[in-house]
Amino acid sequence: MVKYPSGSSARLNGQDFHRPKQTKRAKKEISFSDRGMTLEEQINESNKYYLEKDLCVVHKKPTPIQIVKVDYPKRSKAVIREAYFRQASTTDYNGVYKGYYLDFEAKETKNHRSFPLKNFHDHQIIHLSRCLKQNGICFTIIRFSSLGRYFIVPASFVINAYKDPNKSSITLQEIETVSYEIQSGFRPTLPYLEAVDKFIADRSKS
Amino acid sequence: MVKYPSGSSARLNGQDFHRPKQTKRAKKEISFSDRGMTLEEQINESNKYYLEKDLCVVHKKPTPIQIVKVDYPKRSKAVIREAYFRQASTTDYNGVYKGYYLDFEAKETKNHRSFPLKNFHDHQIIHLSRCLKQNGICFTIIRFSSLGRYFIVPASFVINAYKDPNKSSITLQEIETVSYEIQSGFRPTLPYLEAVDKFIADRSKS
Repeated sequence: MVKYPSGSSARLNGQDFHRPKQTKRAKKEISFSDRGMTLEEQINESNKYYLEKDLCVVHKKPTPIQIVKVDYPKRSKAVIREAYFRQASTTDYNGVYKGYYLDFEAKETKNHRSFPLKNFHDHQIIHLSRCLKQNGICFTIIRFSSLGRYFIVPASFVINAYKDPNKSSITLQEIETVSYEIQSGFRPTLPYLEAVDKFIADRSKS
Repeated sequence: MVKYPSGSSARLNGQDFHRPKQTKRAKKEISFSDRGMTLEEQINESNKYYLEKDLCVVHKKPTPIQIVKVDYPKRSKAVIREAYFRQASTTDYNGVYKGYYLDFEAKETKNHRSFPLKNFHDHQIIHLSRCLKQNGICFTIIRFSSLGRYFIVPASFVINAYKDPNKSSITLQEIETVSYEIQSGFRPTLPYLEAVDKFIADRSKS
């Protein structure tokens, strides 16, 4: 934990806070929030912030594991000695916000102009479709890491693109048209609820 | 999988379907659904049924695991060789139903007249409180296994009882007063959505 001048604190993922200023990155106007964090870390930190402020309750789902063998050593806690990763059947994140059910997957690309659809898995698309049918607020957070840009992309758009046999990617231009861009923040790192508010408002209109 | 006369099928959790009739149990009017299944198995099977019928999307969350060491043997899949169980920070089940966010924990007791509150953990109560603040549909499914009775107990009631320093349990009578009893079913095993409908209807009134 590093104390910031404001008195607030944030985890910096093991990085040294006092390293020399990265003027190159600063020129690109990449915010503090990008500093070496993966998208998952940014979302987890934001969820923690939202949770503490009672703004929403969203958690990342644990990775499903098939446990085969567990040791119970005397005087210490159980140790899993043989286990395997299982295929997930949902997206990574879900929760509740002002009565709405939120469900989303997080993806990032280093590309500048498009997002490859092969980043999605069948089970994620199927799960998002099911949650949409139940009137959930379903989306993907896509990060263009080279651009420092983040979007709330409605699941309906992603599902249609994924099912289109002629499409292997969605362009940044398409994403800009249908999505809600997340503005960089400091607290939380990735203030995605502001974009979700706009998404919900538009959905209610239609 | 066992084929039933109706043509439908259900997993019987490894039990032999063709065993002699259990007249004693039949007298107690314990339904098929009780046959040796744990409450968790009953809920998981019901969730699978609801998922296939597009009625709701509810999944059990995987157990959170701290992975320390993974082997990657040649030509076979990764093996977790050292890992530890972590404390969960949520309840076991959540999902979406007709736009509503559902969040619940499942508990059972062999008692006949009361349910001990020590079966709840702090993190479950805290999580349910947070989800309630976000207007989720939050409850506990309590099974009185000796009675073959199942209840949807509103989280607000459980939270208040848990916080009451003078209370170590909630009586069956209290539960009958504030809850929605789940009627035994065949498909799904535990048709809890019917009770959830009543819960939602009453909540909307108040």
